[in-house]
Amino acid sequence: MSLEKFFNPESIAIVGASGKEGKVGYEILTNLIDAEYSGKIFPVNNKASAIKGLKCYPDLESIGQTPDLVIIVIPATIVPSIMQQCVKIGVKSVVIITAGFKEVGEEGLRLEQQIVQIAKPAGIRIIGPNCLGVIVPVNNLNASFGGDLPNQGAIGYLSQSGALLAAILDTANAHGIGFSKLVSIGNKADINELDIIKALDSDPDTKVIAGYLENITDGDAFVNEAEKISHDKPILLMKSGGTGAGAKAASSHTGSLAGSETAYEAVFERAGIIRCFSIKAQFDFAQAFANQSLPAGNRVAVITNAGGPGIMAADAVERHGLEFATLTDSTVQKLASGLPAAANVHNPIDVLGDALADRYEFAIDTVIDDPNVDTVLMLLTPQAMTEATDTAKVITKISQRKPQKPMLACFLGASKVAKAIEVLRKGLIPQYDSPENAVLAIKMMVHYVNWRSKPKRVVKLFPVNRRKVEIIVEKHLRQAVREIGEVESKEILEAYGFLTPKGSIATTAEQAANIAQQIGYPVVLKIASPDIIHKSDIGGVKIGLKNIQEVMDAFDLMMYRVPKKAPDANIVGVLVQQMCTGGKEVILGMNRDPRFGPLMMFGMGGTMVEVLKDVSFYLAPLTAEEAKQMLVNTKTYKILKGVRGQKSVDIDAIAEGLQRLSQLVTEFPQIQELDINPYVVGSQGTIPIAVDARISVEQV
Amino acid sequence: MSLEKFFNPESIAIVGASGKEGKVGYEILTNLIDAEYSGKIFPVNNKASAIKGLKCYPDLESIGQTPDLVIIVIPATIVPSIMQQCVKIGVKSVVIITAGFKEVGEEGLRLEQQIVQIAKPAGIRIIGPNCLGVIVPVNNLNASFGGDLPNQGAIGYLSQSGALLAAILDTANAHGIGFSKLVSIGNKADINELDIIKALDSDPDTKVIAGYLENITDGDAFVNEAEKISHDKPILLMKSGGTGAGAKAASSHTGSLAGSETAYEAVFERAGIIRCFSIKAQFDFAQAFANQSLPAGNRVAVITNAGGPGIMAADAVERHGLEFATLTDSTVQKLASGLPAAANVHNPIDVLGDALADRYEFAIDTVIDDPNVDTVLMLLTPQAMTEATDTAKVITKISQRKPQKPMLACFLGASKVAKAIEVLRKGLIPQYDSPENAVLAIKMMVHYVNWRSKPKRVVKLFPVNRRKVEIIVEKHLRQAVREIGEVESKEILEAYGFLTPKGSIATTAEQAANIAQQIGYPVVLKIASPDIIHKSDIGGVKIGLKNIQEVMDAFDLMMYRVPKKAPDANIVGVLVQQMCTGGKEVILGMNRDPRFGPLMMFGMGGTMVEVLKDVSFYLAPLTAEEAKQMLVNTKTYKILKGVRGQKSVDIDAIAEGLQRLSQLVTEFPQIQELDINPYVVGSQGTIPIAVDARISVEQV
Repeated sequence: MSLEKFFNPESIAIVGASGKEGKVGYEILTNLIDAEYSGKIFPVNNKASAIKGLKCYPDLESIGQTPDLVIIVIPATIVPSIMQQCVKIGVKSVVIITAGFKEVGEEGLRLEQQIVQIAKPAGIRIIGPNCLGVIVPVNNLNASFGGDLPNQGAIGYLSQSGALLAAILDTANAHGIGFSKLVSIGNKADINELDIIKALDSDPDTKVIAGYLENITDGDAFVNEAEKISHDKPILLMKSGGTGAGAKAASSHTGSLAGSETAYEAVFERAGIIRCFSIKAQFDFAQAFANQSLPAGNRVAVITNAGGPGIMAADAVERHGLEFATLTDSTVQKLASGLPAAANVHNPIDVLGDALADRYEFAIDTVIDDPNVDTVLMLLTPQAMTEATDTAKVITKISQRKPQKPMLACFLGASKVAKAIEVLRKGLIPQYDSPENAVLAIKMMVHYVNWRSKPKRVVKLFPVNRRKVEIIVEKHLRQAVREIGEVESKEILEAYGFLTPKGSIATTAEQAANIAQQIGYPVVLKIASPDIIHKSDIGGVKIGLKNIQEVMDAFDLMMYRVPKKAPDANIVGVLVQQMCTGGKEVILGMNRDPRFGPLMMFGMGGTMVEVLKDVSFYLAPLTAEEAKQMLVNTKTYKILKGVRGQKSVDIDAIAEGLQRLSQLVTEFPQIQELDINPYVVGSQGTIPIAVDARISVEQV
Repeated sequence: MSLEKFFNPESIAIVGASGKEGKVGYEILTNLIDAEYSGKIFPVNNKASAIKGLKCYPDLESIGQTPDLVIIVIPATIVPSIMQQCVKIGVKSVVIITAGFKEVGEEGLRLEQQIVQIAKPAGIRIIGPNCLGVIVPVNNLNASFGGDLPNQGAIGYLSQSGALLAAILDTANAHGIGFSKLVSIGNKADINELDIIKALDSDPDTKVIAGYLENITDGDAFVNEAEKISHDKPILLMKSGGTGAGAKAASSHTGSLAGSETAYEAVFERAGIIRCFSIKAQFDFAQAFANQSLPAGNRVAVITNAGGPGIMAADAVERHGLEFATLTDSTVQKLASGLPAAANVHNPIDVLGDALADRYEFAIDTVIDDPNVDTVLMLLTPQAMTEATDTAKVITKISQRKPQKPMLACFLGASKVAKAIEVLRKGLIPQYDSPENAVLAIKMMVHYVNWRSKPKRVVKLFPVNRRKVEIIVEKHLRQAVREIGEVESKEILEAYGFLTPKGSIATTAEQAANIAQQIGYPVVLKIASPDIIHKSDIGGVKIGLKNIQEVMDAFDLMMYRVPKKAPDANIVGVLVQQMCTGGKEVILGMNRDPRFGPLMMFGMGGTMVEVLKDVSFYLAPLTAEEAKQMLVNTKTYKILKGVRGQKSVDIDAIAEGLQRLSQLVTEFPQIQELDINPYVVGSQGTIPIAVDARISVEQV
């Protein structure tokens, strides 16, 4: 779908245009005219014959031609009738500025649905309602009441909050920040965030896509499309309303460990979206992406005229996990030959407090050619002899001559560097108010480059016994039983290629002893009940039983004690199971997010998982690389690789387990939560065992 | 020591005053005059008779009176002779602006020492050399070349980087930020950061102390004094040069876990200092402390005229561990009665986009009285009808009437809110560029309030056998052996009240078996060698030996294998030891920081400690509360308290162990590193056992 008519219309009708200052219909008309829009403007208002020197029409039909774009600013209740007129005269693109729809409650929602029902069959696309409008500087289009037309630039912006967009516009205009397009998406009755992001992706004027969102309309589509687009252009999003949103009560470890933010974090990670926590940070990052090349690596060189800020930058480089570049010998020698003896010719390069612009020029020109340097950060403090403006010009000049390496600047101070900062801005050199913030922007660029260089995602499909799982799942759904017991949970896992310990359920102590004799000692006893989820909490697990007597004692004690602690639980019996020793315990799990689908989890196993919270999440379906990365993202990984002379466990076997689980939950959307805990893994070449498992299902 | 003559001198001589623009001696004289300094100014320069209309003196003596303050700007090599003149005429306070001392190398260092040697016997105090000077707005004193005299305010600032101070001054002047005093401390030849901090503490004009430091001169004194001062006034410091400073090679777990930043973090924590990572953040925080009351608690209410920013603030409140205030019913009712129906009368309170100043006034006035609210954050986006300036006036008015509760503002935008922001500044309402940053400032205030409300520190002294430790330590120092072996390390611990497992060293398999028989099974065998620190890494530990045969086999295998892996190690024998089972393993440790002394560590024990890094540090000596807090600061704490139905271990016993250890390392400064790993703790009422220990000592 093209949004061409929204961004570059040849004619615009404003329904509700007004000649009264202060009215939104006046503001929009004035903004359109003031921005020197070159197309035709048709004010529509049945109470005026002309507004601001433009002929005014009583209704859309009387215009006599079909405007490319219709902007509606009349009261909400009249909007449906205007939409009918739009259908009649063949309008295809409508921006509804008017508020009073979904955001005010039931009645507004009905009105909004009504509008969509009119628009859809006629092929009309809608931005809004309850929005600020659309701004496209390159086309002199300011179809909004958000503020003055900003500079042209490479940032495409979308916002779900009109008020925030207005504030952003005001700030950007004060600092001369440029945009390719700004869109206020309002209630998203029709066109949503993904439509805009896709349009900005195919827009040649947009180098970076940025926005503010409160929710995402279509989770699945968003993940898939945004991932593709991120490979093309960076997407920087503020997403609010994350914390505190009451997540639904979870019964699994995985569920309780997945916070309300986890899904969004996993989505952003998968789709390569850079999350920003303030407007300030977002524009700090956006400027770097919009105006500079991407760095080839993470090695940063700092050039400064004062020691303090240089050290602060170096600290920040280390704190944020970047590398402080080690200059080549030839660079060091060249710097030493051209800089005063007291200068520091190693990174951070200190050109000294009395450096004029030419000394900066020499240093920058030398350092930018160093093959060990990926990004150059220039720091300047305004000292007695400092030529801030000329230094800014020098930086701009070098950046234009050598655009392949990113250059960022932090000129500290205010009035003494104001002119210089203006020069930097015009020269497209991102300028930051602290070394720390400049380094953060570099970090985001490096993060994006790393994400983009990941191999193409290929999800492996394992041969499985799908029918077996279907039978168990359907049985539970038919009986409306949410929790699948341990035995059947393991049957499901076995159907997907997992190994589980030998064992079966006993209902008498003698039977338990018999099973144990067949399995061989030691054995484990576990209470079997669909109503008891965390068995060890109530004494429902006994490990390391070494002979008949111990098994029988444990059985009877469990049958005596557990019902006291869980009087309402339906107890099926006691599971007598082979004890798996010698391996390491991890947890594999899944929690299904209502919007984005299955979230896979990996972490340290056993009862410690909820305390240490050393877990990682990723959206299913998983590739082999992602499954491996989930392991690497935890501290547990180092333990699995072997510390203090211990041997490594079979890492690939765990990653395969995660992939098989990912396939299971992708193929069975009925599975809501799943834990394999512990998943016992041994040394290289051994097959891990799913010692305990729980699965819950729901009708979908 | 009073710095009165530096801050409020009645007369100032400038040695090196100049009439030539661009010279530092000109800049300082001009700045003094431009700031309308009311005392006498004596330019000293033997090549001029008058400068800028002031009589010029060939030398200090010819002034004919003793100036309160002498500012030196002549070349470094001449400074000693000027100092001699200062001694002669009885000057007591000198600011040396001149650079070219310690910072340029050996020769400069000698020159600097020479100056101190002249000054000290004469009781002359020096600020600098290599500094920018001193600024005191309230006294119209700008004895610096840092920039124009700033506004009066409540922030006292000190900086170890002159260039940074100049940049800060430029920024502050552009934004109208006020200061009580600004001091550039330069090379700290005499007066150091602590002297200035103390002076700012006793300065009634200073409400908050802020500064930039690259190092701390006297660690011990700094910790003790800064802690006292923090109880009086908040101290906000940027400290650079932290990361990457090559820490000395450490042999203990504790040593290797203590990064180069750990000591500074522990110092700042103990002394209640708020660490800032950028100038921007520092001034964000300083403005809140300087201009508003401290909050009584952590509950934040947000008032906004747009939903988006309100949600962003709410997210930030939660993300930073603050509480989002729940308004009382009566507040909600009052808001509902006075605000439009569509307004949100719960936190975040949304007064809607068409709110004029009066609606904000009503909302703020209502919310600030709510007993459930500790801090009020006002958000404003400039919308069509918004009265930004009047709203700012309303906020200022309410803040003056009800100063006991802190109020902060975030007016988003730029030109549309510029006037309003000016009103806020004059009304001492801190203004932030994003809701996120405003919330961060509130977090720092809450953090400070919590720190200050801690009980007075009381360090308990345990009765110990100090003589025993002296003997062992002295023996090792005499023999120049750094590592104290396991057996004697445990004797040291026993002397300080620790319990250690039974056991002794065997040199033959038969002897090992005999010892084991006496102790009782199971036993542990550990290689005994002063040269082997991490025994398990090379197979030097064997646990769970259950009979004579296993002990003898393990002994022989160890004696055969270990020398192959550590051919240079001097092997004393094998320690046969009682095996401690059933408890939980933690680590207690100490690593001595060369500047700040013993850093205590607590964490999860065993071989996992260096992988999981779930450890906490604190400066010794420890109080009972601090020892307990060290436990609470780790995730291990929850495990110790018992998860999933397990019983809690004896938490107080661990805290006591930390206190005893703290006493040991405080009383024996020769102890450089110490690990008790594992320290096995059992249930309530049991005594923990120091199963393994290592101590290293150095001559001090």
